[in-house]
Amino acid sequence: MGSNGSPSERGRAPAAAASAAFPAKPTAAAGPAAAQPAMRWWGWSEPSHPPLLGARAQHSLRARLGATAPPQPPVALAQVRLEDSALSGSAGEELRKLLGGDRVSLDREARVRHAAGRGYLDLVRLRRGELQGAPDAVVSVGDARETLALLELCGRRSIAVVPFGGGTSVVGGLAPLRGRHEAVIALDLARVVGIESLDRRSLTVTAGAGTRVAALESALAAQGLTLGHFPQSFEHVSLGGCAATRSAGQASTGYGRFEDLVLGLRLLTPSCEVELLPTPASAAGPDLRRLIVGSEGVLGVIDRLTLQIAPRPSSRRYDGLMFADFEGGMEALRQLAQDGVAPAVARLSDEQETQLTFELAGSSLSRRAASLYLAARGRRQGCLAILGFEGVEAGRVRAERRHALRIAHEHGAIALGRSPGKAWLASRFAAPYMRDELLTHGILVETLETASTWSNLSPLKVAVQRAIEGALQRCGTPPIVGCHVSHLYETGASLYFTFLAQALLGEEQRQWQAVKDAASEAIVEGGGTITHHHAIGRDHAAYLQREIGAGGVAALAALKAQLDPQEIMNPGKLLPLSG
Amino acid sequence: MGSNGSPSERGRAPAAAASAAFPAKPTAAAGPAAAQPAMRWWGWSEPSHPPLLGARAQHSLRARLGATAPPQPPVALAQVRLEDSALSGSAGEELRKLLGGDRVSLDREARVRHAAGRGYLDLVRLRRGELQGAPDAVVSVGDARETLALLELCGRRSIAVVPFGGGTSVVGGLAPLRGRHEAVIALDLARVVGIESLDRRSLTVTAGAGTRVAALESALAAQGLTLGHFPQSFEHVSLGGCAATRSAGQASTGYGRFEDLVLGLRLLTPSCEVELLPTPASAAGPDLRRLIVGSEGVLGVIDRLTLQIAPRPSSRRYDGLMFADFEGGMEALRQLAQDGVAPAVARLSDEQETQLTFELAGSSLSRRAASLYLAARGRRQGCLAILGFEGVEAGRVRAERRHALRIAHEHGAIALGRSPGKAWLASRFAAPYMRDELLTHGILVETLETASTWSNLSPLKVAVQRAIEGALQRCGTPPIVGCHVSHLYETGASLYFTFLAQALLGEEQRQWQAVKDAASEAIVEGGGTITHHHAIGRDHAAYLQREIGAGGVAALAALKAQLDPQEIMNPGKLLPLSG
Repeated sequence: MGSNGSPSERGRAPAAAASAAFPAKPTAAAGPAAAQPAMRWWGWSEPSHPPLLGARAQHSLRARLGATAPPQPPVALAQVRLEDSALSGSAGEELRKLLGGDRVSLDREARVRHAAGRGYLDLVRLRRGELQGAPDAVVSVGDARETLALLELCGRRSIAVVPFGGGTSVVGGLAPLRGRHEAVIALDLARVVGIESLDRRSLTVTAGAGTRVAALESALAAQGLTLGHFPQSFEHVSLGGCAATRSAGQASTGYGRFEDLVLGLRLLTPSCEVELLPTPASAAGPDLRRLIVGSEGVLGVIDRLTLQIAPRPSSRRYDGLMFADFEGGMEALRQLAQDGVAPAVARLSDEQETQLTFELAGSSLSRRAASLYLAARGRRQGCLAILGFEGVEAGRVRAERRHALRIAHEHGAIALGRSPGKAWLASRFAAPYMRDELLTHGILVETLETASTWSNLSPLKVAVQRAIEGALQRCGTPPIVGCHVSHLYETGASLYFTFLAQALLGEEQRQWQAVKDAASEAIVEGGGTITHHHAIGRDHAAYLQREIGAGGVAALAALKAQLDPQEIMNPGKLLPLSG
Repeated sequence: MGSNGSPSERGRAPAAAASAAFPAKPTAAAGPAAAQPAMRWWGWSEPSHPPLLGARAQHSLRARLGATAPPQPPVALAQVRLEDSALSGSAGEELRKLLGGDRVSLDREARVRHAAGRGYLDLVRLRRGELQGAPDAVVSVGDARETLALLELCGRRSIAVVPFGGGTSVVGGLAPLRGRHEAVIALDLARVVGIESLDRRSLTVTAGAGTRVAALESALAAQGLTLGHFPQSFEHVSLGGCAATRSAGQASTGYGRFEDLVLGLRLLTPSCEVELLPTPASAAGPDLRRLIVGSEGVLGVIDRLTLQIAPRPSSRRYDGLMFADFEGGMEALRQLAQDGVAPAVARLSDEQETQLTFELAGSSLSRRAASLYLAARGRRQGCLAILGFEGVEAGRVRAERRHALRIAHEHGAIALGRSPGKAWLASRFAAPYMRDELLTHGILVETLETASTWSNLSPLKVAVQRAIEGALQRCGTPPIVGCHVSHLYETGASLYFTFLAQALLGEEQRQWQAVKDAASEAIVEGGGTITHHHAIGRDHAAYLQREIGAGGVAALAALKAQLDPQEIMNPGKLLPLSG
């Protein structure tokens, strides 16, 4: 869920740096998605995906980080250590009787494929084949009636349930924790798919929550429409996953966050069904939509969604700009957001991320753009920005672009033209592929994000970067830490950090936890939210109380007690495991 | 609270029809508010307010409705029937000890002034002096510590608490129901006021929840800023009231609904304090902001808010248009909303409301505009629209206006120029003043609203109008029913109904309930939300379950049980009285 991603087409262009990205042959990134490529069981890429990290980049990066270990390939599937399923007995039999034998899989690969999300530690464990605690079975439902019956059975037989959409959580949201229960299943929503209705006049679509965002986008594109939701996980993530985790999407500045797109939805819980009327707006008490959106599977299963869609943009122009410094760039973005003319996509890399982007750039195109800039300015430092303008009226897109470029220029930017923008579009989902390769090279690569008000962004950025650097230095693995600001709001924006360091092989968990703790502490101390679009999951659960207080946590717990009295739903996520 | 209103300046222009409004001398409606005028205890107007309903309009309206009763003036304050306060004993003594004697009032006028909101039935009861069930005391707190201590005391002494801001609820949200408790107090937030901090760079302001919207707007105006929130109750309503009821505001299309403006807030409950970090966005679990916003005082007291503000528009142009028919006008508004160029204010009256507007227009200006239109078209029917464009850049405002007028023209509109727009601005808060006068003339006047998707608006409008007409015809009092569409969203809009009929004197409650039931049934059956911006209060509580289901109501009840275990907070509002 949250923000991870991969490619939708075969033959897609090789792409660039971990999350920074500025390379490659342009492809129509928002174009119709091909059939879903299957992830590798141990990572993100489908097997046919070409490598992204060139020999030069590989060498330079390993040298900078002091990574000297030989390649660390994943184990073979047969070597993965799995415990025996706790559902080989009568409870499993009852499951099969309820749903049919083909919908309840105890198969090794199925269990492995549902054993983890795609966070850094997930990948480390997958590649080592350490999947003790994998789900005891993978279960698939076809409709709401089946889901409600399944939840009843699971409550009765003490089976924990982890709702599973695209499998892309990067915060431990899919960890198959069983809490106090006898067993745990992954509830795969792969069959709860498809468009139920499309209302062109109202610009709404109703679809099953298991529908992949890419598949919906493809179906809408054929009708001249778009959802406009492009998280980095675009190629795999499901609608239900985006809803459960309050996904933002790279173009949230233009199309809104996922939560803004939800008009109505249905939640199936162990105790009841909550169906909320699709309405553009209401004052009928607290907005329960916003309580279900973000509930991360701990209240029940989001089963169906009615979403706002938009006319498909016919005019699109993505520009690259180079700001002399980050502060100037931020001021330009702030002004765009507050003038109400922020483009659909806006992101500004700091010097470190900009440098990393150039360093990892896989294509001659991006190198050309870099040279252009360097030649023009005679210096190596600068902050790369991507501004993506799109709309249905070419004239308005042009006017907005002119307005934005003028503001950028006033804040010390020079234009790099279309190439960087096209390259960014082509590689916008590439970072998780690159991450697979970096892990093979013994490199820790991780991202985390926060958001705050404009006034607080600079001090918060400094504090978080220092925390990450300090923690990894104390581990003896000095990092590269880059950051970009994106997802513009009138009142603030998101800060997205990417860091790379030599992995402490065999001690990845300790190393990762040290930096995660330091960064999280800096975020909550610095007035940022613990997550802008990756959700709470397991990784941030300890920090939720710092953000919403004991009273807020108690309110959520009371809600869970009402809807999921036996606590079978996704134990240990969002709220800490009880007892 | 929600959407009712009154004037901020002396000498303001006389204005027009109940909620439709199209008259009068222009004043700077969003300009700095003067000191809060006090409402009359029995109605809306301050005593010095000039009458709005001219003799001609009065005569014609009474004739159309068959209203023949003599004027029905309110009783004198001394005649109001109040029960003795249940807090004259030791509990009251304890309250005074906690807060000081000057903060606990058992005074007759104070109790009367906090005995009701400003819905139709509230006014009927107030004018008759039937205030049995008034609060036993009016209590005022100065800070969070005092509020928490007060709630503790009230829990211990079994005293129900009705949070009281501007006193403008039109849905029974302030009814001093005591539930199963010994007494009930109105907790007046008039001292929890003022700006705590203003962040110009981030465009946020933090203020006490008792701060009046008009006072905040005035303070912001002095700094070149605006909240952009103008419910019809603008002159009286408090920030906390807007938050508690999910107020929309007449310019929500331009500035967002109140819930969209809330970055952070604090809720003080009988069991804890919930303080939510002001953040532009977050994915940290369900958005508890949206759970507190809309909670209508039943979970606790909203005490402080951090809100998004905006640069004050320097360019403003409000236009009047006449569409040949309602369907054409709706299509034009839909296109504006979906093109992303909807003006800050957009509203389209149907034929009935348009006619009523002209009929009640108090000034020669509006009559001139009407004549202009009639002369141009040679017919009496048509649908009046007001489009209000505003912004900080004159060029953009002009461009948006051109775009909008072109679309309107394509859908059969003729321009009426600035006068109707100026008149609307001048009288945008006038309807509740007019309502006071209509009640004196023995006329039932009421409004209600819903929202739905564009595709569903026309059938919903027809169904609700028929239900209102049918119910009042069955009462033997055939009504005038007008409607306007406003508050545009990409996916739909609000429908706002105004109806007038001869009041069944002495049977106002039965008459009102008959039409309310019929309209509410038509709304929920027709797929609309039971309220777009008036909130649930007591009047819609029976319909909440139709909208969010038994599961949704159970979720809210669980939340209340956690935060307010003794059920002292605003009993019988939002959720039905328990037991």
